[in-house]
Amino acid sequence: MAQKITPASVDFSRWYTDVVQAAELADYAPVKGCMVIRPYGYALWENIQKALDQRFKATGHKNAYFPLFIPESFIKKEAEHVEGFSPELAVVTYGGGKPLEEPLIVRPTSETIINAMYAQWVRSYRDLPVLINQWCNVVRWEMRTRLFLRTTEFLWQEGHTAHATAEEAMAETLRILEIYRDFAENEAGIPVIPGRKSESEKFAGAVESYTIEAMMGNKWALQAGTSHFLGQNFAKAFGIQFLNRENQLQYVWQTSWGVSTRMIGAIVMVHGDDQGLRLPPRLAPIQVVIVPIWKNEEGRAQVMAMAENILSRLSQEFRCHLDDREELSPGYKFHDWEMRGVPLRIELGPKDVQKGQAVLVRRDLPREENRSSVAIDGLPTAVQDTLDAIQRNLYAQALRFREENTFYPTTYEELREAVAKGFALSYWCGSADCEAAIKEDTKATIRCIPLQQDGKPGQCVYCGSEAKEKAVFARAF
Amino acid sequence: MAQKITPASVDFSRWYTDVVQAAELADYAPVKGCMVIRPYGYALWENIQKALDQRFKATGHKNAYFPLFIPESFIKKEAEHVEGFSPELAVVTYGGGKPLEEPLIVRPTSETIINAMYAQWVRSYRDLPVLINQWCNVVRWEMRTRLFLRTTEFLWQEGHTAHATAEEAMAETLRILEIYRDFAENEAGIPVIPGRKSESEKFAGAVESYTIEAMMGNKWALQAGTSHFLGQNFAKAFGIQFLNRENQLQYVWQTSWGVSTRMIGAIVMVHGDDQGLRLPPRLAPIQVVIVPIWKNEEGRAQVMAMAENILSRLSQEFRCHLDDREELSPGYKFHDWEMRGVPLRIELGPKDVQKGQAVLVRRDLPREENRSSVAIDGLPTAVQDTLDAIQRNLYAQALRFREENTFYPTTYEELREAVAKGFALSYWCGSADCEAAIKEDTKATIRCIPLQQDGKPGQCVYCGSEAKEKAVFARAF
Repeated sequence: MAQKITPASVDFSRWYTDVVQAAELADYAPVKGCMVIRPYGYALWENIQKALDQRFKATGHKNAYFPLFIPESFIKKEAEHVEGFSPELAVVTYGGGKPLEEPLIVRPTSETIINAMYAQWVRSYRDLPVLINQWCNVVRWEMRTRLFLRTTEFLWQEGHTAHATAEEAMAETLRILEIYRDFAENEAGIPVIPGRKSESEKFAGAVESYTIEAMMGNKWALQAGTSHFLGQNFAKAFGIQFLNRENQLQYVWQTSWGVSTRMIGAIVMVHGDDQGLRLPPRLAPIQVVIVPIWKNEEGRAQVMAMAENILSRLSQEFRCHLDDREELSPGYKFHDWEMRGVPLRIELGPKDVQKGQAVLVRRDLPREENRSSVAIDGLPTAVQDTLDAIQRNLYAQALRFREENTFYPTTYEELREAVAKGFALSYWCGSADCEAAIKEDTKATIRCIPLQQDGKPGQCVYCGSEAKEKAVFARAF
Repeated sequence: MAQKITPASVDFSRWYTDVVQAAELADYAPVKGCMVIRPYGYALWENIQKALDQRFKATGHKNAYFPLFIPESFIKKEAEHVEGFSPELAVVTYGGGKPLEEPLIVRPTSETIINAMYAQWVRSYRDLPVLINQWCNVVRWEMRTRLFLRTTEFLWQEGHTAHATAEEAMAETLRILEIYRDFAENEAGIPVIPGRKSESEKFAGAVESYTIEAMMGNKWALQAGTSHFLGQNFAKAFGIQFLNRENQLQYVWQTSWGVSTRMIGAIVMVHGDDQGLRLPPRLAPIQVVIVPIWKNEEGRAQVMAMAENILSRLSQEFRCHLDDREELSPGYKFHDWEMRGVPLRIELGPKDVQKGQAVLVRRDLPREENRSSVAIDGLPTAVQDTLDAIQRNLYAQALRFREENTFYPTTYEELREAVAKGFALSYWCGSADCEAAIKEDTKATIRCIPLQQDGKPGQCVYCGSEAKEKAVFARAF
């Protein structure tokens, strides 16, 4: 049954939930704060995983797996870390029918348990760098659930590396940030602003946190990936030391970094429209759907034979699906696949078969301009070209939207107006007081201090004192 | 530093742990009962995942993800299920700093939480079959840890399907068992006996459990995968009903099935020897290691240039590694990669380069017969042929070993002797009393009633009464 989607302009939050549920990406679980990722949503996650994992491996990282449970005492070893995570912890107190001597924390992130192992494994500079990533579930207690965006349990990857020098660790931090940027822009079609977090917004336990920030369809920001320079904080807490080439005992320098199933929420909110999802071809579980159209049995036989022929040819290169459901009209099917965000539809009727052609319908363009007829023999090339064009266009549309809704206020009054309608890029003096006052007044936070700056000094948009860098201010998920 | 491996003949259990740790497959975690899967072990798991996942998808299954936490009341809904799992549960009683109203169970398996969702999703025969698989972590409280074989947390896949008829569900149960057999034999090189579990050994909540059973190097059995016909047990407990074509409300028929990281333990124990691991080429993280050999700088330059050339040619088709570590001798490297079970080593010295050849060394053969010289131009073909031969030979060796250590006792005295030295295939009348008496006396359990039977009746090896089928009796992990 077709589900009704609340228009985004009426209620963005309901629009989001309607799209996620109607497209069967995810569902609420009967466990407070948790979600079920349904097959269509999980297939999208698998494509995200593949694209990221390939990039991690190409830069020398290896996957491993560390325990779900962390002894409470470990979490407490890094002071800022425990303070940051304490309110969000799920605690196991019974195991095998007995109360535990030491409670176990269900990992909210794995710095502590992983670094306890690194302390055992790292002895010499020859053991460095350690470049390990983990794909897993993590738990942070949430009272309010928003599918993919805020759930008690979510899936992610968390990279944890150890290096001989601060410079190498910082280079790794930024290498991963660049991988995230490249992934977001070129795979997910989401333009992002790579930048540094302010002191108050950084990861609990990091020296510096870096982020990629994206603008969602309601003009709020979403943090789509983070990469942290941890300095020697965890190395000192867990005693991760190595003998360097000069035979001196040194603490390692570390990073950690992650992208989660939140990325799916970002894809929905950046590209989706009132008809439902619009998925970037490179990540779409189904890139091409073939919808056969017929009125009588003779037409049906002709059309289905050709549709299956097309399916088998295109399936060698593309993720294709032939919608051969008997009881549904073509119109219902069009609507259904539009709602699920399939980038390209191939319509095939008896007349098309006679003419040796098919109709391509693009999900990314308005109805007036989204159809074209293509010779069946030329389909593989036409489909490739069209998918490439859709990928580029989704990115271009999102970039234009962000640019149209980014403002450059120089006075506080302008800033207040700007953050009510989009991103504000303004000079900030670096003071936590100015940052807090702006947040208190407007609910906008500093999303990041962009890596790209024009190098000229200016005046803080709040206090007017000298500022070296601009920051992005915005409301955020 | 090379770690010493206890000979298997001295202490099989220590041999196993030594191999797993020396090869850096896994390590003990500082959390009771838990392990860390290290990058080399995880790479093996990734190859297992790929091979299984491909087979699941080719037969119409899709992956999804369900919550880690299960409300305690759900676990209690299926009577046999809760009884089977109660002693093994880990329980979360605090979340977000507060005691929970209802404790949450960390999933030991996901029948209950998944079927609660199926009850919401399934309405009509059109929604069937539901063919979903999940890759995830599960927790069953263990006091004694054996890496990969018995740990509080482990990784696995669990398939959960729902069907309109009992016949379809039974066909699915056996289809998956066949996938497991095919995977074990053709990818892992492990001969298995597919069969049915006895009533006392079946999964808590199943109507029938099927298994693939393999013989380990100490002649004990290991259950390497299970596929369960659940009947309507969970359907009735969770109310999963659908309207059939005749518009009647029916309960679905279900299956569940799983393979876990235990499979890694099986690979170690079936193929390993006193030098360490021996990995089947199709699953080995590194299929070919190239070890360059030189005595002076001139030789070094020549050999390294050719080694890199060979690496780049072979890497297109095989998972290759060039061991260019400077400070280690060739002999150390040979030993190191043998211990890690790399199926094929290519040795390359200055004389080889001059002659345009390289030396192939197989891990699966005794030292007297494992070397051959091959022209460098012919390497891709020679490597492919040799890896195929190694894959076949590992399977053949394991099959021969099982056959040599399988006995066919017809008297109880013979059975007692047989299970002390291997597998016993004997008639069993089906009585739980006979089964329990044998277990009590010999510690051997019924591993399975093989699917393949000769159809002739016989006499129960314990009580002498009429028996229709033979069962495999053995000690087991």
